[in-house]
Formats: sequence, structure tokens, C-alpha cells
Amino acid sequence: MTTTTSDDTDKTPQPTAAELGVGARLSLYPMTDDFVTVILDALDGVDDSGLEVRTDDVSTYLGATSVPGAVPKIARYVETVVRSTVSRTRGHVVAALLLSRGCPGEVTCEVGEDPLPAPEEVPLGLEPSGITAAAHWSVYPLDGDDHMDWIGRAIKGAEETGTFSRGEHYVTRLDGDLSEVIATIFSGWLAAGPGHVTTHATISVRSPTYREDEQ
Amino acid sequence: MTTTTSDDTDKTPQPTAAELGVGARLSLYPMTDDFVTVILDALDGVDDSGLEVRTDDVSTYLGATSVPGAVPKIARYVETVVRSTVSRTRGHVVAALLLSRGCPGEVTCEVGEDPLPAPEEVPLGLEPSGITAAAHWSVYPLDGDDHMDWIGRAIKGAEETGTFSRGEHYVTRLDGDLSEVIATIFSGWLAAGPGHVTTHATISVRSPTYREDEQ
Repeated sequence: MTTTTSDDTDKTPQPTAAELGVGARLSLYPMTDDFVTVILDALDGVDDSGLEVRTDDVSTYLGATSVPGAVPKIARYVETVVRSTVSRTRGHVVAALLLSRGCPGEVTCEVGEDPLPAPEEVPLGLEPSGITAAAHWSVYPLDGDDHMDWIGRAIKGAEETGTFSRGEHYVTRLDGDLSEVIATIFSGWLAAGPGHVTTHATISVRSPTYREDEQ
Repeated sequence: MTTTTSDDTDKTPQPTAAELGVGARLSLYPMTDDFVTVILDALDGVDDSGLEVRTDDVSTYLGATSVPGAVPKIARYVETVVRSTVSRTRGHVVAALLLSRGCPGEVTCEVGEDPLPAPEEVPLGLEPSGITAAAHWSVYPLDGDDHMDWIGRAIKGAEETGTFSRGEHYVTRLDGDLSEVIATIFSGWLAAGPGHVTTHATISVRSPTYREDEQ
């Protein structure tokens, strides 16, 4: 005999973060002969609890094992790993970041009701890193006809945060503290509508051609 | 008095490639202490006629000065520069590529009739490079509701070309000769519908964690 509590009957099964396709891809490029050691040392000991982390030869997949807290967990992991990489070399470091939500499959995707909280409800919890970063950032809201409106909301968020520098061809230029730049990217991605939304960012630290007076 | 030839009256003014927002962003990451020299040497002498090439500290913008031939010109430039970079170092090289069409502005965009030819009409003219490459590739058709159908067409093209390896989370994995991989990315981007379409690819050569038996 099976007893059912009222709690069980009230609960609608919630899809996991993997089922909803909430996650990231991250690549790290420390521009040094010792890049393998720098990356391995940077990853060593970073808290990845609640995340599925799978690395291949092109990038690292970051998935969350449950929806609640998924986005702050991924954001903190990305920020910690990039900061850790920068601290292990004196030279130029680039991080390439892809975030995606709302499309669990690769070719077909069933977009359901968006379960993610509004961006202002997500405490990303990123402390200032003391590292100056620049980024080229693109947001892609893929559902519906009004994608430019949603992109506009993401960019407005960047303007309010103070990381917005200017629009360039195909990208928005962000400048600021590394953690602020990463928080802007995550918040803008969340702000860019429900459904299938992806974002790409190239985050650059200590480029030899970086000029502070141009930002 | 002004005379008008029949040729003049028949011609509708054609927008330029820049007005249509046809172009690319390219970043090169040779993973070596000498990355600046490697990149500068690789760029030196590459034919950029018919292209606007503008480099900043994060990436290089590639625009075409006219629509006819714009896509093959950009594709050849990208392939030549990546091949040239790979030939100047014995180590790991990554190229990050963003292609965009149909959206000249950054925040607002007026998408007109798509003037670009169908992918099968574009002779990309890329010779085999003899360099083995892997890529993580994403295509984003931004106009309309049927974006997954258009993505499917782009992936089908990759399958027919033979560079398709598998779908991964948020990306398609491509493997093959560098020039075939680059041609697949350009052709798939053209195949993914009219209007505003972007594509992102991370192209990796000689990664220390590349394993041929896994492709």
C-alpha cells in the first residue's frame, strides 16, 4: 500500500536545468606557452557543487543540476575561474562565454513556460574582482518577431550598470571590473525575454592593445 | 541638361554590404608567449582588397565594401589569416568567428529584402589547407518563429559536407580540414534563412586535448 501526502499531490514535477537547457560553455585562453598549467591550476579547487562540468578540446560545458540557483551558481563559477586564470599569469587572458536557456535539444527544441526568475530577482553575488576587463557581447532572443526590443532591454541594463561603452558592429562593447562585466552579461541574457535566448561574450583582460583613454 | 541612359533608369540603387550589415568579427588566439608577433606576421601581406578591416583590443571587424562577392571575400580572408597563424607556431591556435547579415545597426535594425545569394551559388573558393580543425558552431536566425527549421537546414548542409560530427549542448561539433570547416560555417550561415542571421564558431587547431579517435 502506498500513502500519498498532500505535499506530493500538490507538487507539479519541475524540469531540471538540463531539461530546460539552462547552461553555459566557457573557453579560457591565457596567451602563454604555459597555458595548460595555467588553466589546470586555475580550475583546481574551484567549487563546482551543483554543476555538471564537462571539458572537451574546444570548450567546457557547464550545466546546473537543478533550476533554483542555477544562474547564480554558473555565474559565480565563471567569474571565479576567469579571475583565477588571470591571477596565474601576468599576460593577456581571454575568456569566451556562451550562455543558453530554453532549448534543451540541439536540433529540435520544445520551449515551455520560462521558469527562470526576472534578472532583478537573481542575486548573482559577484564581489568586485579588482581586474579591469573589456568585452564584446551579443544577445540573441530566438523566439518571436520582436528580437530587437528584447536586445534593447539587455543593453539598457548594461547602460544602467555602467559597463556599457558603445555599440559596435554586431556587438556591444562593455568595460569595467571583471565581475561587473560578467554580471552584466548574465543579467542581460536573463532580461532578453522568455524562451530560447542565447548570449555570446568575448572577455578580454590585459590586451596589449587595450587603451584606457578610448573606453 | 542631363541625359539619362536606359541603364541608369533601370538600375535600382543597391545597398552596400555595410548598409546591409554583412560582415564578420574575428579573434585569433595563438597560445604562446609570442602571440603578438605571430598574429602580426600572420596578417602581414594577406590580401584585404574590397574589405574594411578594423582591429581593436578584443576582435577585428571585417566588412565588405560592396555586396557582390562580399561573402567569398570575407571567407577567403578568414581562412588565409587562420592558416597563416597556424603556420607560424607549432602550438595550439584558436580562432573565434562571428558572422552577421541583415542588420546594419547595433540596437535598431531595418531588415529589407535579403540580397545575398543562396549558399549553393556562393563559390567560396577555399582550397584544402592540410590542417586538421575542430569547431563548436552555433547559428542564430533571428527573424520569425521558425528558427529551429532554419538551424536544421544549416546543420543538414554540414552533414552533407562531411564536417558534421555531432550535436552538443548549444553547439554543433564540426571536424575536418580547416578550409572545409570554415566553408561549412559560411554556407550554413547563408542557408539559415533570409533576414537577420548571425553565427558564432570557435575553431580549434592542435589542442593538446584533441583526440582523433573521438571524432
